[in-house]
Amino acid sequence: MSELQVVLLSGGAGTRLWPLSREAYPKQFLPLAGEATMLQDTWLRVRELSGMPPLVVANEEHRFLAAEQLRQVGVEGAEILLEPTGRNTAPAIAAAALQAMAAGKDPLLLVLPSDHVVRDVGAFRGAVREAIPAAEGGALITFGIVAAAPETGFGYIQAAAGEGVRAVRRFVEKPDAATAQGYVAGGDYYWNSGMFLFRASRYLEELERFDPDMVQAVRRAFDGAARDGDFIRLEREAFAASPADSIDYAVMEKTDRAMVLPVDIGWNDVGSWSALWQVSEQDGDGNAHHGDVISVDTRNSYAYARRLVALVGVDDLVVVETDDAVLVARKDRVQQVKEVVARLKSDERSHAVLHREVHRPWGSYDSIDADVGFQVKRIKVKPGGRLSLQSHRHRAEHWIVVRGTARVTRDNDVFELHANQSTYIPLGAKHRLENPGTEVLELIEVQSGDYLGEDDIVRYDDVYGRS
Amino acid sequence: MSELQVVLLSGGAGTRLWPLSREAYPKQFLPLAGEATMLQDTWLRVRELSGMPPLVVANEEHRFLAAEQLRQVGVEGAEILLEPTGRNTAPAIAAAALQAMAAGKDPLLLVLPSDHVVRDVGAFRGAVREAIPAAEGGALITFGIVAAAPETGFGYIQAAAGEGVRAVRRFVEKPDAATAQGYVAGGDYYWNSGMFLFRASRYLEELERFDPDMVQAVRRAFDGAARDGDFIRLEREAFAASPADSIDYAVMEKTDRAMVLPVDIGWNDVGSWSALWQVSEQDGDGNAHHGDVISVDTRNSYAYARRLVALVGVDDLVVVETDDAVLVARKDRVQQVKEVVARLKSDERSHAVLHREVHRPWGSYDSIDADVGFQVKRIKVKPGGRLSLQSHRHRAEHWIVVRGTARVTRDNDVFELHANQSTYIPLGAKHRLENPGTEVLELIEVQSGDYLGEDDIVRYDDVYGRS
Repeated sequence: MSELQVVLLSGGAGTRLWPLSREAYPKQFLPLAGEATMLQDTWLRVRELSGMPPLVVANEEHRFLAAEQLRQVGVEGAEILLEPTGRNTAPAIAAAALQAMAAGKDPLLLVLPSDHVVRDVGAFRGAVREAIPAAEGGALITFGIVAAAPETGFGYIQAAAGEGVRAVRRFVEKPDAATAQGYVAGGDYYWNSGMFLFRASRYLEELERFDPDMVQAVRRAFDGAARDGDFIRLEREAFAASPADSIDYAVMEKTDRAMVLPVDIGWNDVGSWSALWQVSEQDGDGNAHHGDVISVDTRNSYAYARRLVALVGVDDLVVVETDDAVLVARKDRVQQVKEVVARLKSDERSHAVLHREVHRPWGSYDSIDADVGFQVKRIKVKPGGRLSLQSHRHRAEHWIVVRGTARVTRDNDVFELHANQSTYIPLGAKHRLENPGTEVLELIEVQSGDYLGEDDIVRYDDVYGRS
Repeated sequence: MSELQVVLLSGGAGTRLWPLSREAYPKQFLPLAGEATMLQDTWLRVRELSGMPPLVVANEEHRFLAAEQLRQVGVEGAEILLEPTGRNTAPAIAAAALQAMAAGKDPLLLVLPSDHVVRDVGAFRGAVREAIPAAEGGALITFGIVAAAPETGFGYIQAAAGEGVRAVRRFVEKPDAATAQGYVAGGDYYWNSGMFLFRASRYLEELERFDPDMVQAVRRAFDGAARDGDFIRLEREAFAASPADSIDYAVMEKTDRAMVLPVDIGWNDVGSWSALWQVSEQDGDGNAHHGDVISVDTRNSYAYARRLVALVGVDDLVVVETDDAVLVARKDRVQQVKEVVARLKSDERSHAVLHREVHRPWGSYDSIDADVGFQVKRIKVKPGGRLSLQSHRHRAEHWIVVRGTARVTRDNDVFELHANQSTYIPLGAKHRLENPGTEVLELIEVQSGDYLGEDDIVRYDDVYGRS
């Protein structure tokens, strides 16, 4: 049997689940439907099918997140292809195919978006196994979801008559409600899930037929890629020259080798707050509540609380409460959340991009209080984490360790601090913070100065390759 | 013309405006309908009628708030009668009458709840002036509000025919909707506003007729009162022995000296979030939004935001976002907010009583972050403020001054710290924090210890009389 290479597409920066999902930390990296993050779940549900670590395609800015989250679920040595710019799925998968073939192999690629939910994991794995022979025979297989409702938010695939893997009659765009109703009634239409199985070389061959410019551009980007540990940084200029297109448009709708395997696997793309409500466990009143929620006469509502949220007499509502923003939306209007995000972006507000807690390769910082002339941050440094050697022009810093051990470089001194010990970094001092221990280091930083922006930083050395 | 003594009733601990209003810092102390707090506004709108500072009746636990808020609007030497326990309005006003007569005078009392809105202040002052002659003539005058709608949440007063101050035909309880409709249509019914004007001695005489036990109890509580600066602490046992009753039941509904002056003054008791929405300035979509609110297709909604609140596709909603709790309620169900508060109380959760920022006579503290083993507080100390001399058994504290000047006592040392300076209070050290300056002192306190409750405090000395 052919080798199976799982390809996790993690390029999305979706903000339809704002304020939980934000550009710098989007949906696939959040534990929205269980204990693990959606990226982790995507891998965990198929890892037993593959003898290799997954191949990940991600945005440059998410590289540390993707790497760390896979490490957390035991993946060692996953290669992460970094897109210098988003060009949709067809070029991303082409780059993955080139990487999968780089060692002279030609595995089957199981291509999976990393932000979907699959409730019946056994059925899904069974379906992949069932599809393998056809993929080995040269087919490009898409998994069609048995349509539970006349959704207008998905594309549909009309399958030919038959059992198991079968020919595709046609792909259709997102339909209107009446058309969708007809599709569901007809019984031969399936939701297009964006999950695929095919041989790496076969995908490239088909893409070459329909869009040779794309293959050429991606090949140049791949040949010119820079390796940085497990990160493979596609060459920017070449990749940017590729046409942007989805695999559906570029290949699946054109090739005569497309086949579909209808599956009933409890799939949900979690494309909105109402979709998340659907896949969440609900109480007898249809409420799905996460965190500290008190509800009085409330029905069919989704609430996510970090602090306390109280709902009184509301129906069909989504309430999402985070450290720095609260969303209250009618459940059938959640698509308009993107209008909020658009407004935040046009106002250049960080709420569209960053959470209050900002993740860095060494850990994270959370601005817990700020006012004129000062800011208070809670800083977490992973075991082994090292911030850059740096100085500031406009602020001094007090550090109080509250957990773990800090190694502090301050000009010519290097010393360790433990919980309940503190130090002071004068304005201009060259300093570095490290965690030499085996548990997470946490400290409270109090900044004083006339300017406290993140850009007041002079970096002298950085182990993560940030200049 | 008789002297006019304004009596501000500030005894309420209303939680119908939770989570903004909480037991320890209720509605009358909040700037809900303008720049000033409701207590301040209540005084400011009538101060020109009176040559004396107001007399305040308040809860023991609100005494510093009431005193400070009146000082902020230029009131010097307001006497504050402290109720050891709430006995409703009739005893509270009796105590105020005794105090007003203590120096051998017998002024008119203008009795005002301190948590109402009056939009037409000129009309209100005119009404008080119009009522004075009748009050001097011995009447007990209530101000009846021209009913703008058939409200079922208020009691009504039926007035006799006539102009200006006139006889009361009868007082009626909160009616059902149909009855209220009839009252409004009839034109001779007015809302009972809880505002009164009468001579101090006349009130006591009438109360003596109908409830001599109450007068006796209050008189004993007043005679046994302890003075503490401007605070007059009614004697607990005697006051507790008074029957609890409202002025309406105890006096106004029984006396034949009751008169009513109908007034149309833009009055609102702000008894719920929907009432606050009504009196707030609304945009063209009927929205009243305070703070950082983004709304998309939203109508007739009230939103109060400390951080960012985004509303999408919602109508007739109340959203109130505070540091530690968010309320989302349908506007016609806001009376059920009390069910949330009741649940919080039965669960002994502080959200019912305290805000995250907790006020103290010396200033305030705000718990901006906390986790196992540590807590971070932002502490504000007013000019001249002095915390108690204290020590802790379970925690050490780091203090970093971020604004103003701190005088620190630490065991045998006393020293000053300025912005961007810090110190350490070891576990067990006897310490005190003071603000010797003329601007507010702000500091960040990082506590480390195995127990961080507020009750880990040994007080050696306290200038505010807290043992």
